[in-house]
Amino acid sequence: MSENPRIVEIISVGTEILLGNIVNTNSAFLAKEVAKLGMINNYQTVVGDDENRINETLCQALSRADVVILSGGMGPTKNDITKEVVKRALLDASEKCSDVYVTSDDKCVVLLPGSPLELEQAFFERVMPFLKSLSTDVIVSRTVKLVGVSEAEAEAKIKDIIEGKNPLVATYAEVSEVHIRLTAVEKSEEKCEKLLKPIIRELKNRFGNAIYTTDEKVTLEKAVVDLLISSNMKAMTVESCTAGMVSSRLVNVPGASDAFKYGLVTYSNSAKRKLAGVKKSTLDKHTAVSRETAIEMVKGIEWGPKADVIVGVTGYASQGDETQPAGLVYISCNVCGNIVVNEYHFTGNRTKVRESATTEALILMRDCILKYLSNINFV
Amino acid sequence: MSENPRIVEIISVGTEILLGNIVNTNSAFLAKEVAKLGMINNYQTVVGDDENRINETLCQALSRADVVILSGGMGPTKNDITKEVVKRALLDASEKCSDVYVTSDDKCVVLLPGSPLELEQAFFERVMPFLKSLSTDVIVSRTVKLVGVSEAEAEAKIKDIIEGKNPLVATYAEVSEVHIRLTAVEKSEEKCEKLLKPIIRELKNRFGNAIYTTDEKVTLEKAVVDLLISSNMKAMTVESCTAGMVSSRLVNVPGASDAFKYGLVTYSNSAKRKLAGVKKSTLDKHTAVSRETAIEMVKGIEWGPKADVIVGVTGYASQGDETQPAGLVYISCNVCGNIVVNEYHFTGNRTKVRESATTEALILMRDCILKYLSNINFV
Repeated sequence: MSENPRIVEIISVGTEILLGNIVNTNSAFLAKEVAKLGMINNYQTVVGDDENRINETLCQALSRADVVILSGGMGPTKNDITKEVVKRALLDASEKCSDVYVTSDDKCVVLLPGSPLELEQAFFERVMPFLKSLSTDVIVSRTVKLVGVSEAEAEAKIKDIIEGKNPLVATYAEVSEVHIRLTAVEKSEEKCEKLLKPIIRELKNRFGNAIYTTDEKVTLEKAVVDLLISSNMKAMTVESCTAGMVSSRLVNVPGASDAFKYGLVTYSNSAKRKLAGVKKSTLDKHTAVSRETAIEMVKGIEWGPKADVIVGVTGYASQGDETQPAGLVYISCNVCGNIVVNEYHFTGNRTKVRESATTEALILMRDCILKYLSNINFV
Repeated sequence: MSENPRIVEIISVGTEILLGNIVNTNSAFLAKEVAKLGMINNYQTVVGDDENRINETLCQALSRADVVILSGGMGPTKNDITKEVVKRALLDASEKCSDVYVTSDDKCVVLLPGSPLELEQAFFERVMPFLKSLSTDVIVSRTVKLVGVSEAEAEAKIKDIIEGKNPLVATYAEVSEVHIRLTAVEKSEEKCEKLLKPIIRELKNRFGNAIYTTDEKVTLEKAVVDLLISSNMKAMTVESCTAGMVSSRLVNVPGASDAFKYGLVTYSNSAKRKLAGVKKSTLDKHTAVSRETAIEMVKGIEWGPKADVIVGVTGYASQGDETQPAGLVYISCNVCGNIVVNEYHFTGNRTKVRESATTEALILMRDCILKYLSNINFV
């Protein structure tokens, strides 16, 4: 193999993908992971469970890439066929042949199962170390995750940093988030870290609290739950159009029970009144989707367990009548009696609007808690 | 073009897909739609925003397929480049060239934007009618959706029907669901319907209430909401480990407000007591994850708006201590005072367990409502 094999192709074998019955998340996972290793992916191919087509696709991939990662198409009966195809494609006797990879003098084929959970496990346990061992270089990457800035704003703010080649710095837009990925290449992990450290420090200087984590594995909801736990605060949710999506995302964090106790889904007006204590006069005068209703939704309820942080969401997920513009959402947050309410105009279909509102609710929670903490620390 | 061009290849242009930053949902959408048109997709390829690579990929696809569908890579500046590449690949002067497709004597390339919403809109409005016009045959497909049976059970029950060639009948496993797709090919739509009708009737005979819809567009949550509306019933949710996922899925149906009024997310024990009225003695004696707690969660609350159907979910989404087996979930449902509770053992990670529990909660709601309705109709 060349000293630093860098070109990777990804082949997924699966009739279900060709029929559109499953979305090819395996390729996305593999592409993301090989990118983090500093490798370059120029092509991804999906091919059916057909020996000739697999062979043709594999040979073409081997003519263009150093490493081919092949997933799926290896049921209990087909395992051997695919392996035979692979060995044949590599032509010369393989110098090394483990459970997941076959190598020749200058090429390598990695074979992974089609089930996403098994594929991810095999990748982390065996393929990643193997791919790392192929190169004399060590690659370390970090992801810095931001909220409250657009991708364009973030890019403009770090133009000088993006120009650098090592670490390579790139921005990615996620739903209401921007991720900055740093990839350093050096002869050792320590040398990579030495390159990354000052850049991360500089990013923290420039973006401050907009950065919610520098850990790839930490999601926005995990950052919020961690912040709640470290501030010894308990949260509750009062949701209308998101109808449980905010509480559901908080609970997706293992250990959320230390920070989140309960939520109300007040979809109807009577539920907003009887459960959340919104006044009938407020609903009559301002309607359910208004700044005023959003504020009353987070005033707290006397009959429920105590909460330090209450977040409320009310809006039009899709078009109702003419007076109800789709995408208009009010999100409110109460931290120990300090209430903030924001107006948002989201675009997209019903699901998109609700997802955006959910992410913005988490962002507002984080924002309000941080402001509250900095104020009490200042006093 | 040949009389019935049937072989389709799908090419996605996008660096974000090669970097793993987005999952290729466009290919899945296109694959599903062309399969419904009776066309055959043997390859899907992802290639970067590079003129030479697009050209190479396109030429190869044209050598294997009648129709190539190319999406993405057409930003405001790149639109013309991609089109030029396409015209060059087709070699001879194109006989027809619209906004979305270019055809030569025997091949055709369809060009679609990369944004999923725009792609879907353009596909339904312009590409689907065009693809249908290519063939002298008419293809009509139907999806029959089932719950409460495994794919193996469903297959065994319709072995004789699956053997037929027109309509072609195939089963697909979804999360806690089985879909049966019927595809008929004939000279007219009426003739297709004539082939499909008796088979659908036969499927209804064999599976009865396990079929929740014969409409491709109807989701399980839509079937539940429609059933609630047609029975003039209002539902509420009381969720622990799913923490709002059941209410959120119900609200994803436009018009859900006629059937769903409110929900409680009772994640902590105190919330189960104070909000849902579960007795302290029950929690002490049986713990929060028990048949007894699940039953008390759906007994109804005096202070809230009235509900005819109450569904409750409590379980361990992931491993707590040794006494808390991950995946153990109790789901209860109360329809006008008649309470049913089931025990489930789900596998997979935290998200998977919660998703399975959510789907099973919807299935149980539907089941209990149907049983209640058939009983009162019987009496």
